[in-house]
Amino acid sequence: MHIHELETPAVVVDLDILQRNIQSMMDYVRAHNLNLRPHTKTHKIAEIANMQLQYGSVGLTVAKSEEAEVMADAGCEDILVAYPIYGVAKWERLARLARDRRVTVSVDSLAPIEGLAAAAQKHASVVGILVEFDVGMHRCGVSGPDAVVALAREVLDRKGLEMRGVMYYPGHVWNKPAEQGPSLAEVAEKVGALLEALQGANIPCPIVSGGSTPAARNSHLVTGTTEIRPGTYVFNDRNTLGVGACTEADIALQVLATVVSTSVPGRAIVDSGSKTLTTDRWLSGSDNGFGAVVGHPDIKVVGLSEEHGHLDISASSATLQVGQRVALIPNHVCPCVNLHNRIYFHRNGEVLGAWDVGARGKIR
Amino acid sequence: MHIHELETPAVVVDLDILQRNIQSMMDYVRAHNLNLRPHTKTHKIAEIANMQLQYGSVGLTVAKSEEAEVMADAGCEDILVAYPIYGVAKWERLARLARDRRVTVSVDSLAPIEGLAAAAQKHASVVGILVEFDVGMHRCGVSGPDAVVALAREVLDRKGLEMRGVMYYPGHVWNKPAEQGPSLAEVAEKVGALLEALQGANIPCPIVSGGSTPAARNSHLVTGTTEIRPGTYVFNDRNTLGVGACTEADIALQVLATVVSTSVPGRAIVDSGSKTLTTDRWLSGSDNGFGAVVGHPDIKVVGLSEEHGHLDISASSATLQVGQRVALIPNHVCPCVNLHNRIYFHRNGEVLGAWDVGARGKIR
Repeated sequence: MHIHELETPAVVVDLDILQRNIQSMMDYVRAHNLNLRPHTKTHKIAEIANMQLQYGSVGLTVAKSEEAEVMADAGCEDILVAYPIYGVAKWERLARLARDRRVTVSVDSLAPIEGLAAAAQKHASVVGILVEFDVGMHRCGVSGPDAVVALAREVLDRKGLEMRGVMYYPGHVWNKPAEQGPSLAEVAEKVGALLEALQGANIPCPIVSGGSTPAARNSHLVTGTTEIRPGTYVFNDRNTLGVGACTEADIALQVLATVVSTSVPGRAIVDSGSKTLTTDRWLSGSDNGFGAVVGHPDIKVVGLSEEHGHLDISASSATLQVGQRVALIPNHVCPCVNLHNRIYFHRNGEVLGAWDVGARGKIR
Repeated sequence: MHIHELETPAVVVDLDILQRNIQSMMDYVRAHNLNLRPHTKTHKIAEIANMQLQYGSVGLTVAKSEEAEVMADAGCEDILVAYPIYGVAKWERLARLARDRRVTVSVDSLAPIEGLAAAAQKHASVVGILVEFDVGMHRCGVSGPDAVVALAREVLDRKGLEMRGVMYYPGHVWNKPAEQGPSLAEVAEKVGALLEALQGANIPCPIVSGGSTPAARNSHLVTGTTEIRPGTYVFNDRNTLGVGACTEADIALQVLATVVSTSVPGRAIVDSGSKTLTTDRWLSGSDNGFGAVVGHPDIKVVGLSEEHGHLDISASSATLQVGQRVALIPNHVCPCVNLHNRIYFHRNGEVLGAWDVGARGKIR
């Protein structure tokens, strides 16, 4: 079956591009003696996680304890929960997983250190800890070397925990490559000072975990980094394209949609709205559109209702007809995939199968 | 179990408020001799749909053929698909349902009329049609009485179809009640002229379907309207509150979240981000926040990462601690619920059970 025989909306992944993206990030980390621990939040799919492991990733990254369970079931032996998990049931879930897998959790306060230690002792396991260090995004992470040292000592003091290092997230380094120098240089300076302080305090720090797709291929500029955690690079999207972190040829995922109404002059409505694409804005571009239309740069996705994508075709010579199909590139692919239970994969348009988005919607 | 013992994030519905909201909309339509055909896109839950039917709704509204199947399985005998469905498989799905249920579909072009007629003939059923009329939102719907009459004649000409009337969506009437007069008056004028034209052309029009939560309780001002299709009224949200279509006491759904980080001064991070709340903006208010924090009007939800809600607490006297819980009101409840596989219901905080969001994520 060809992808254009699928009912719409349909999320389709080009397997050739996906595999090239996975290989290309491996090539980058190998060239710079880094480890790759991809963030699975982008796809939440066991089969893609396994592909990433087979290509040479040292393990996987997740954001939730429930996602850790899915990736463990998928066969992953080494999982980083890059999130300051809070909650007894969640800590116990991770401690149970840690009985026969390597589980590491990032923290930036005492509460999860205490909680994870208690859970690990209860389940006779060892949970690894990375202390999160804020390098300028101001989301999570403690803000100076002293605070990292203080939390690391709390980790070292507790049975059931192993101090494995530090984590940083340069999510604010979101510029085109030519402009990236200064921000990453600032990150490098902060990480350098931190590592010096840890060494001075005799704190073991085998892992220095960084990286995020936009700046991933400059991670070697942050000296001391041992592994990176990009997620979006497997599919790419309008945002990674906008910052120059990929080319159009590297965008592996499209949303196929059908024109359902052309009643309003200058407009076309497609059957993909906010429940298909998400209302995430285009962070790296100048307009406020909700996605790009492949092959039609002069068509703007000016609005999304829940099941309606509003295309402004007034500046385009294209004459869209009811029933015609378009392919859309989401602004942000991670929450887009998270809306779907299943996405299709193909080579050259020939559908080869569908993957369950197995780690989405997991709550207890 | 109390709702505060649930793992977070958790979506919880206060059953008392939900039932009061369902009853109150019934009271409104009865007082004005209108029918209620609630849009199930808001909840996608069979149990709530059945509650709406038991309280006196004449049928249900859906946006997709797959949702129509779920609501038919839930026992609904009379379903309106308020969407210009395009696709052979979707038309056939609806025609099959129409063999033993009343199924009506809105259209604004010839293609779905032809497609639904062919499907209905194939499956020996009759599909009802409403012609959609644009009253000013400029999304779907033909724009003048002549165009409605022309499409209605195409419907009347075809075996397998029954012309059941017209549909309008006053989704642009999104003002506070005091300001609502002019816009609804304009809608009333357009609908009045349309009905006159249909009568003049001898086109049967038993159903005039309107309504949407913000303007729902003024639907009687649009003379000729026979039924309304509000959805959000069951739960309400920050947007319906913002336009004065409900009070705080009418908000039935909250998202419970836990503070996971307070490392950055003036900020608190909670475990509910865009994959829990959606990035839908606050359309009815002046700020750009991503939700409201119950009991803390001075705390702003200034940003959402996928699993992080960024609270600005710099203007608040509240001192949020890691592990503390907050309750959030989503800006737009419909896409929020659509992110979850299951939501909880309670009375006075006592959890009574969970509902499957059964009609979400249905693709073929």
